[in-house]
Amino acid sequence: MGLISFIRKLRQIHAQRPFIPAEFGESRQVRTLLNRRSVRRFLDCDIKDEEMALILEAARLAPSTVNMQTWSFGVYDTESWRQTFGRSIPYGAHRAVLVLGDITRVKQATDIFPDSPLVEYTVSVINASLAAMNMTIMAETLGIGSVMLSDTGKTGFFSAAYLKERLKLPSGAYALMTVVFGYPKDRDVPMPPKFEIEDITFSGIYRQTDTCRVREWLSLMEAGYRASTFFSSFQAKLRYYRENLIRAERELRDIILGERPKT
Amino acid sequence: MGLISFIRKLRQIHAQRPFIPAEFGESRQVRTLLNRRSVRRFLDCDIKDEEMALILEAARLAPSTVNMQTWSFGVYDTESWRQTFGRSIPYGAHRAVLVLGDITRVKQATDIFPDSPLVEYTVSVINASLAAMNMTIMAETLGIGSVMLSDTGKTGFFSAAYLKERLKLPSGAYALMTVVFGYPKDRDVPMPPKFEIEDITFSGIYRQTDTCRVREWLSLMEAGYRASTFFSSFQAKLRYYRENLIRAERELRDIILGERPKT
Repeated sequence: MGLISFIRKLRQIHAQRPFIPAEFGESRQVRTLLNRRSVRRFLDCDIKDEEMALILEAARLAPSTVNMQTWSFGVYDTESWRQTFGRSIPYGAHRAVLVLGDITRVKQATDIFPDSPLVEYTVSVINASLAAMNMTIMAETLGIGSVMLSDTGKTGFFSAAYLKERLKLPSGAYALMTVVFGYPKDRDVPMPPKFEIEDITFSGIYRQTDTCRVREWLSLMEAGYRASTFFSSFQAKLRYYRENLIRAERELRDIILGERPKT
Repeated sequence: MGLISFIRKLRQIHAQRPFIPAEFGESRQVRTLLNRRSVRRFLDCDIKDEEMALILEAARLAPSTVNMQTWSFGVYDTESWRQTFGRSIPYGAHRAVLVLGDITRVKQATDIFPDSPLVEYTVSVINASLAAMNMTIMAETLGIGSVMLSDTGKTGFFSAAYLKERLKLPSGAYALMTVVFGYPKDRDVPMPPKFEIEDITFSGIYRQTDTCRVREWLSLMEAGYRASTFFSSFQAKLRYYRENLIRAERELRDIILGERPKT
């Protein structure tokens, strides 16, 4: 990528704005939702217990399939995270919530799931993710930044076996991601390269995204990555993933399909 | 369940309130988030295109693993839904968005995923669910009600094969749920029986929920179900699920593990 092209791409990234129809431009709630960014630099101060309680309340009250609430949450401060994992919360955050898909509660009470590991997994991943998003938005509403981690620092399903062992997870409980919370250090974090609405929507039957649009997105990702991490590249990140994915796949296969919870 | 016990349980359900610390009680955004309910009765009038555009914008700008945006959205009004599925949108809603996990775009551009169907599936289910929750909250913010459907009316992953065939989905695109939108007919829909925060959280290592608490929850679910649907029961609903889960499991197994997208 030449320098001119690189600069042009960075400009293109920075020019991205949420689309807000004029009549909704004044709504603080609309702006809060659309201006949320993943935060990776936090002020070195703790958030309040009341704020954390509200964030967890948003998780508790998220919707779920047949109200089954197939989730659990590991709640940590710097101390308990260190005790559990022997290191700091990623990105220097003071609070972390480890989000689990959790089918064990339903299994204690009913025999709804005969032998259906993939259905159970899907139900629990969907619901736990809904809760994670609700937490993130509650945080945002309180002026608290957050980022969801599924690979960085062995905090999610890329390290399924490690987390299962470390947290002593029974079968039916799946570590999916960690959301870390704190007051954001920076304002106006740029939006990462997003597809346009036409690229990701269809009506009637499915329509595949134009390959040129996908390549365009990839080149923006590469430029953005190069601008933010001088000594790495998006391609290097992708290589890192490829190397770890085979292991992660094997672990998920064991955890989801191998050991069946006793019914 | 005796009548007295039944009434006591209904009271217990109706007495549930979101926990909001006093200092945050005035925040409209906090209340919007915590008072969201799934809506299944809609006014018979359409919502505006600008509102739908904002709801989709919330989906587009949701966070995702390495910003891969592994989702797609089928966007329908009553007309296009009928053309595609030969019936009405469930619950008489006028708009529906079918949410798909979608790994095809990433696969067009990179070879990040070697042979890792469960990782791909997990990534795409997590991200698509985050987008679905963001849509739902944007709707709520605009005074629009919604409900996420994964079984009712063949609208989600319980009918994976049907939707794959109907939408002509390629491998790597997974129909997960349909979110239907409309103006709510009722105010103050009661909160379904929720676990307490102590039941669903732990610190340090994993802690299983007390079985008595789970049984308590189940008995509230049964009472709530009986109160809302006179001719059915929660146990009947569970039986319905059991019968359909084996089929759904087989379909998911085919779709996720059977046919591998060409890399």
